Amino acid sequence: MSKAIKTLAVIGSTGSIGRQVLDIVRDFPDKFRILGLAGGKNTVLLSDQINEFQPKIVYSDHKLNLPGNTKFSSMEEIATHPEVNMVVVATSGKIGLTPTLAAIRSGKKIALANKEVLVMAGEIIMREAKLHQAQILPIDSEHSAIYQCLHGEKGKVARLILTASGGPFYHHSALRLTKVTVEEALEHPTWKMGKKVTIDSATLMNKGLEAIEASWLFSIPLNKIEIVIHPQSIIHSLVEFIDGSMKAQLSIPDMRFAIQYALSYPERLANDSLPRMNITRLNSLTFETINYAMFPCLQLALDSGKKGGTCPAVLCAADEIAVQLFLEQNITFPQISEIIDKTISSHRSIDNPTLEEILAADQWARDTALKSIAR
Amino acid sequence: MSKAIKTLAVIGSTGSIGRQVLDIVRDFPDKFRILGLAGGKNTVLLSDQINEFQPKIVYSDHKLNLPGNTKFSSMEEIATHPEVNMVVVATSGKIGLTPTLAAIRSGKKIALANKEVLVMAGEIIMREAKLHQAQILPIDSEHSAIYQCLHGEKGKVARLILTASGGPFYHHSALRLTKVTVEEALEHPTWKMGKKVTIDSATLMNKGLEAIEASWLFSIPLNKIEIVIHPQSIIHSLVEFIDGSMKAQLSIPDMRFAIQYALSYPERLANDSLPRMNITRLNSLTFETINYAMFPCLQLALDSGKKGGTCPAVLCAADEIAVQLFLEQNITFPQISEIIDKTISSHRSIDNPTLEEILAADQWARDTALKSIAR
Repeated sequence: MSKAIKTLAVIGSTGSIGRQVLDIVRDFPDKFRILGLAGGKNTVLLSDQINEFQPKIVYSDHKLNLPGNTKFSSMEEIATHPEVNMVVVATSGKIGLTPTLAAIRSGKKIALANKEVLVMAGEIIMREAKLHQAQILPIDSEHSAIYQCLHGEKGKVARLILTASGGPFYHHSALRLTKVTVEEALEHPTWKMGKKVTIDSATLMNKGLEAIEASWLFSIPLNKIEIVIHPQSIIHSLVEFIDGSMKAQLSIPDMRFAIQYALSYPERLANDSLPRMNITRLNSLTFETINYAMFPCLQLALDSGKKGGTCPAVLCAADEIAVQLFLEQNITFPQISEIIDKTISSHRSIDNPTLEEILAADQWARDTALKSIAR
Repeated sequence: MSKAIKTLAVIGSTGSIGRQVLDIVRDFPDKFRILGLAGGKNTVLLSDQINEFQPKIVYSDHKLNLPGNTKFSSMEEIATHPEVNMVVVATSGKIGLTPTLAAIRSGKKIALANKEVLVMAGEIIMREAKLHQAQILPIDSEHSAIYQCLHGEKGKVARLILTASGGPFYHHSALRLTKVTVEEALEHPTWKMGKKVTIDSATLMNKGLEAIEASWLFSIPLNKIEIVIHPQSIIHSLVEFIDGSMKAQLSIPDMRFAIQYALSYPERLANDSLPRMNITRLNSLTFETINYAMFPCLQLALDSGKKGGTCPAVLCAADEIAVQLFLEQNITFPQISEIIDKTISSHRSIDNPTLEEILAADQWARDTALKSIAR
């Protein structure tokens, strides 16, 4: 890796991904420096991070005491600061959209963990990234796997194969699904993640969002993206080339692999704190077809992605509301997909939407999803 | 792929690999043209190939009737002909050594299926290839897999992991191994190959030769090459990078994948005649550690590779004789390793050998191996 220190802004530093980004930065103090941090509700953690990394600029909705050399600034200022080499977008939901666009428009490298950014506004994001030559490096194990398999490859792609653990309920009956608790849904069999994405993994919505994201990121139509259940989460995804040969990327399931790859790209860094894999000690690696009927969120996502327009934004927003309602124990697990389905069904999509139209559709979907449960 | 036709010389066109090379050429008449063929004992097949592909030049030890535009020439002339873009070395054993060196010295691209070339004379071959900027593309599923995983990759390699099916006898008892027949040994569970390499797969000698070959080809010391049993032969090999992430290449076991990749490199060609893989229809993928005690040929090969000098040439020669004796039913299956062990034990290795010293060691080993059974 080149000896110059890479200067990072981390948007969403107090979330699950943000904390792991800072773990990698801690592992390589001579490689990465934190210039800006933007955190969420957890102000105690944000204060600790600020004291540890001494960023120049910080964004928070809440009151904080800052050290002498740290100043408050807007999220956009953090994302576009001239000294920043790479902006890590580690938020989830629509909040990541504006800073990501700002970073792209100032030509930054983006390490993108926020799925909704591409799902909601993929066409705009990819167009602007091309225009401003802003490289987008995915922080998601599946997309990182595909990125790694495609890096340097001259062969044309026939198909992307996204692997899905299936979540905690993959072999449950329909009846049993009506009775799953929040605690059960938050117990992911292979990955440790934030609450929203863990519930999305249990409904398989997460895999649908990933398919839409992959479609934008790698310019592959959704009908060339296959999803397979791979309960062990060792093969993080595969690429099939036109000659029928496949490439795959594998590791112990730990988000820090994808995070570190995005941060150190195109090089790789030896890191003793990451778990090593001995493939002869693994269980068998298995692959199963998807049971779409049992996990309607996945089909809803794929259909929305194919329809395009403002549909994917409505999908994301309705899902965010529905998951929140489930986490608050206001609805059952199967009602998550019912709310999303109702909301999408009553939406009139706008083709080639502007950012404003996307954000309006988002707001409409949130209101509609909430109303659908009030009825 | 660029529109220019790639002109090929195929050394060993009548063997198992050579015939499959011509299958790929048949699949893409507008991509590849055969300029030269060199064949073995099977003169009927060689004549058919000559009539079909109408090469300019041909080498054969035997009498043949040639069409009007085809001329006899030496193997070296075929390997160095100015119109040839790529020389496919599809022979096995030491016969491939001289034409490979000749092709390298005239700066040709080499598609190399002949393991012994690198095992016997890896240091000379790689040094000359660097000097003459001759690219060597492997035609062996394991090495092709590693080549594909490394292509374009900027990350440093921690380890190569060669997969081995284990051959037909992997779970046999020692007693049962003393009784295996030639027919049983020629029944490989996953790959269809020539007789010599099929027996080498049953003894695991083949995997030892591949490890030495990989060590030269990818400049990786043998102690960073791990061998694991993978009975399904779907993952053809893996690379572990310094960050602990692995990349793998997968396909249905069919040599034409590696052959076509070498021929079309760096591009890939869509080919309907190659079998497609549906990973949800696969059996579980499993990995086991090697039982070195049961398959002493593998340890003999790795030890020879680590000693270097003329040892690997002696290993190859003794193995060639021992396999021939087994195929002729003169010795039992376990005697294959015994003959090789005896021969290597009585060899005095020469460090940094010249080509002449390598060939002399080869001849000495053949004589010694034959004598060891006569005693």
